[in-house]
Amino acid sequence: MGTHTYRTVLLGRGNVASHLKEALSETGHQVIPVGGRDRTQPIPTDADLYIIAVTDSAIASVAAEIGDVKGLVVHTAGSVPMSVLPQQNRGVLYPLQTFTKGRPVDMQEVPLFIESDGDLPLLREVAYHISQHVTEMDSQRRCYLHLAAVFCCNFTNHMYRLTEKMLSQHDIPFSVMLPLIDETARKVHSLSPAQAQTGPAVRWNHEVMQAQINLLEREDLRQLYQIISQSIHLDKLQSQEG
Amino acid sequence: MGTHTYRTVLLGRGNVASHLKEALSETGHQVIPVGGRDRTQPIPTDADLYIIAVTDSAIASVAAEIGDVKGLVVHTAGSVPMSVLPQQNRGVLYPLQTFTKGRPVDMQEVPLFIESDGDLPLLREVAYHISQHVTEMDSQRRCYLHLAAVFCCNFTNHMYRLTEKMLSQHDIPFSVMLPLIDETARKVHSLSPAQAQTGPAVRWNHEVMQAQINLLEREDLRQLYQIISQSIHLDKLQSQEG
Repeated sequence: MGTHTYRTVLLGRGNVASHLKEALSETGHQVIPVGGRDRTQPIPTDADLYIIAVTDSAIASVAAEIGDVKGLVVHTAGSVPMSVLPQQNRGVLYPLQTFTKGRPVDMQEVPLFIESDGDLPLLREVAYHISQHVTEMDSQRRCYLHLAAVFCCNFTNHMYRLTEKMLSQHDIPFSVMLPLIDETARKVHSLSPAQAQTGPAVRWNHEVMQAQINLLEREDLRQLYQIISQSIHLDKLQSQEG
Repeated sequence: MGTHTYRTVLLGRGNVASHLKEALSETGHQVIPVGGRDRTQPIPTDADLYIIAVTDSAIASVAAEIGDVKGLVVHTAGSVPMSVLPQQNRGVLYPLQTFTKGRPVDMQEVPLFIESDGDLPLLREVAYHISQHVTEMDSQRRCYLHLAAVFCCNFTNHMYRLTEKMLSQHDIPFSVMLPLIDETARKVHSLSPAQAQTGPAVRWNHEVMQAQINLLEREDLRQLYQIISQSIHLDKLQSQEG
């Protein structure tokens, strides 16, 4: 770990901003939070680093407000290209994690993906202060990374949500599912998800699948069940061919 | 824990059978494995307990082969009603977990759901030998439990699988996703999945969603992305109303 600390302006009030603020302060950096879009404070012009941790659609306008500074200006979004920043000294610091307000996250374990066509060494140094896992990746590949994260985090969490709703309709506590949820996540640490798959769709147990579709009252959930089951089955057929 | 041990005939050669065999043997029960449908051994007629751990569609025929015995006959399936068993002394022992051959599972932590209109005390006793978590549940509610398990285990694992495929197309190792997968699972231990949701769909960030759909080359994955995103958004609207 380097011994330099940097004057860092942090723009944003959301979950990513608050988690970065904590991690940077803990590693000795001077963090100057100046809020998000609706801030009243002026933005300092002499900082070493500016981190724009605001909602995707506001990044360009916040960057424009920062204007022509010497310090490195980075945003933290997965799907926004670095080129949205007008500064010459610019970059991206994308933490691949799901952040919820008030829920502590060990930032040292969060993979960070960085990119810069300006002061990359400074960005790399700060990134390694925050986390042990730092990878350089360009904007195009980062988009795929973010897309993949949507599937294995947001879409997975929605499967948990649908589970919770089904169970609550039958007065079964969601907590009975936690050992299964944990084991499903643990399995893919040592098996590929293709090897780890179980259940009616991969076996194409048509009788069980039809019975389960009939249990679903809502048409949108029936459709979702069918589409995911078909996708599981198609993937198995392709794996066998390949 | 009771001190009785029982002569247990285990029918089946799959993952559930092998995990149950191990757990029962460890707790001192005499387990007589007699294979599945294609067995050559005769089925003993004087056992205390018969556990049919075969694929759903074979349960009825294996039960018919067991025939008229005094011992308790149970199957282990989530979506098959107890009534498929012709015996008077019958029941169900459903372990709510995903089992993969060769992968050890701590059965003491696996929730077991039991049902019997025969010797329920014996089933309860054996179930508590296997696991600390035993719940009585009838066949109708168990179907919903199994349906919910398909969503939060099999469908979740498929999200991991789709993630793996997307990443491998861009030479990104699946392992970068493991901290995110783990945190997504951990979060729902203390937050409801509705509170835990993050990402473009719950914020209805249309620009990111459209860009992500455009990154998906296959039409079936585009459809899947749209349907799950709509379901996330619909759920959020309903939660706000409710």
